[in-house]
Amino acid sequence: MADNGIAAATCPIPISKYPQVMLAHGGGGKLMHQLIEGMFVSSFENPMLSRRHDGAVFDVDRGRMAFTTDSYVVNPIFFPGGDIGSLAVNGTVNDLAVCGARPLCLSTGFIIEEGFGMEDLWRVVSSMKRAADAAGVVLATGDTKVVDRGKGDGIFINTAGVGVIPDGIDIGPHRIGEGDAVILSGDLGRHGIAIMAAREGLEFETTLESDCAPLADAIFAMFDRGVRVNCMRDLTRGGLASALVELSEASGHAIRISESAINVEEDVRGACEILGFDPMYLANEGRFIAFVNAEDADLALDVLSGFEAGNGASLIGRVGKNPDARVVLESSIGADRIVDMFSGEQLPRIC
Amino acid sequence: MADNGIAAATCPIPISKYPQVMLAHGGGGKLMHQLIEGMFVSSFENPMLSRRHDGAVFDVDRGRMAFTTDSYVVNPIFFPGGDIGSLAVNGTVNDLAVCGARPLCLSTGFIIEEGFGMEDLWRVVSSMKRAADAAGVVLATGDTKVVDRGKGDGIFINTAGVGVIPDGIDIGPHRIGEGDAVILSGDLGRHGIAIMAAREGLEFETTLESDCAPLADAIFAMFDRGVRVNCMRDLTRGGLASALVELSEASGHAIRISESAINVEEDVRGACEILGFDPMYLANEGRFIAFVNAEDADLALDVLSGFEAGNGASLIGRVGKNPDARVVLESSIGADRIVDMFSGEQLPRIC
Repeated sequence: MADNGIAAATCPIPISKYPQVMLAHGGGGKLMHQLIEGMFVSSFENPMLSRRHDGAVFDVDRGRMAFTTDSYVVNPIFFPGGDIGSLAVNGTVNDLAVCGARPLCLSTGFIIEEGFGMEDLWRVVSSMKRAADAAGVVLATGDTKVVDRGKGDGIFINTAGVGVIPDGIDIGPHRIGEGDAVILSGDLGRHGIAIMAAREGLEFETTLESDCAPLADAIFAMFDRGVRVNCMRDLTRGGLASALVELSEASGHAIRISESAINVEEDVRGACEILGFDPMYLANEGRFIAFVNAEDADLALDVLSGFEAGNGASLIGRVGKNPDARVVLESSIGADRIVDMFSGEQLPRIC
Repeated sequence: MADNGIAAATCPIPISKYPQVMLAHGGGGKLMHQLIEGMFVSSFENPMLSRRHDGAVFDVDRGRMAFTTDSYVVNPIFFPGGDIGSLAVNGTVNDLAVCGARPLCLSTGFIIEEGFGMEDLWRVVSSMKRAADAAGVVLATGDTKVVDRGKGDGIFINTAGVGVIPDGIDIGPHRIGEGDAVILSGDLGRHGIAIMAAREGLEFETTLESDCAPLADAIFAMFDRGVRVNCMRDLTRGGLASALVELSEASGHAIRISESAINVEEDVRGACEILGFDPMYLANEGRFIAFVNAEDADLALDVLSGFEAGNGASLIGRVGKNPDARVVLESSIGADRIVDMFSGEQLPRIC
């Protein structure tokens, strides 16, 4: 496995003594406290954590807050462009951001299988810390459970997040209206194909990396520059297609998109052709769609172009009449087709 | 397994068609949406969930909030006095309450093993709903992942919780002071022994039930009646001993407790004698310790006696001088012993 720059020598738990996580590391006794204090609290250090309380305590101003959760069970846990730790931070930060919320703090719940490598745990924790710093969020409270060998799969991580929605921001399916421009923030499907390639040992001409990235800065730049954003959704499991269908149903509006406006990298397109996948359904971990007032579409694209996470953003469609709630894709050869959610299972444990 | 009053007939997912959870139930497509809409959203219905957003959005007044998380991996998932669903709600509600916070909303993250019984899932979800209603908290946002067979163990549940701390309430280890009375809210160890009995098939003369219960009402009644509460901690993994040692270390104060003042039911005491357990280290899921001003101890006991969750509360000790940070137990035969956290693993997957 790639080292990601984290040497075993920096691990605060003595690896020669405890090369693997043991059941006692989740038992509530001395070893658990050594793990929590030595690895988690010291890595994630911040005033909320350092109170050693059963929960984080923080002040808020009158206003609106957002609250979200995701569990991460991705397999493999290390992949080109990220790992389960960066995914667990970015995924939840992004769920807050697409609610229009500035991420404030995250909780982390680890479920670790007995025998999981202590050095791998340290790499994951270090990656969470880097991702949290990059996203400007603190890891404020946490929990660690260890399950017996064969009853888990290395490590699962749950993160929940709390964020603050600034005054004047109101984002949600109820705000989608006829004529809204649909902006896609970048190319599709790299996360899905990168995970599959890592799992199956596929090789590409270039290294295909996950798109895993925090989105809050790009999203808040749109607000700051005056883009009237009505709704957003980050594209994870189920991909662009599922997000569009969900929002079409939730808003009662038709959505019409153009296949040729959707950016897909050559390697991703090639992998899809060989493997029979459709990029519309591939998972992403650093992409979102935004529904903005039609006259703000160019401004939105201009703002996004200033961010790595918005590189490759494009206007992919328009919102149609209410109550014709369906998603129509105009294919590159000019034919229309109805987009539906997929049935069955495309690629399990992608996030 | 006991039915707990939930008939398969009431399950909103057709069990004859989907008797078991499949990977596709976590895949982001149609089956996942049927599961989420049909079972989770319809059961947990509330205005936050019904917005169908990536997170819950709610208004807050200026003030202080608490935020906490726990993952639940208890084995077995159904046990006398509760199940993983009621545990996942009460455990997180209690973590908020001992921070002095009125529980506001919870998130739920399910990690389900492929093949888990749909009827069992429905029983767990129904139990969460009942527990949430009893605790006055809404299940506001959630996430569902399915892992392949053999890579999990039935169901793991993470809940994170957000609560509001009323003005004037300041609870934490920093407030513990010399002379504080240490109140234990009830008898010790029933959760630990009930789980072990269910796991190992042990039988007692009476049915020994877990103490799993929500604590917020009893705690807030103390505030309302004017008990000056300085710090609290709920007693889970590691039991009373670990909580006392943690708080002694965090506050820098000695704590002296009396063994004869600690209530332990006869069956629990008998099981401990046979199995070599110490009730001080057994897990509880509906018990807490409170450090209150010395002159308020009787009032605190009077308040707690009015609640089922405070039945059997007792004054178990006093806080001693700073900085003599250790916990001393005066045994029933009059000898003193130093209490430490346990080493190793007493009973894995107790919560």
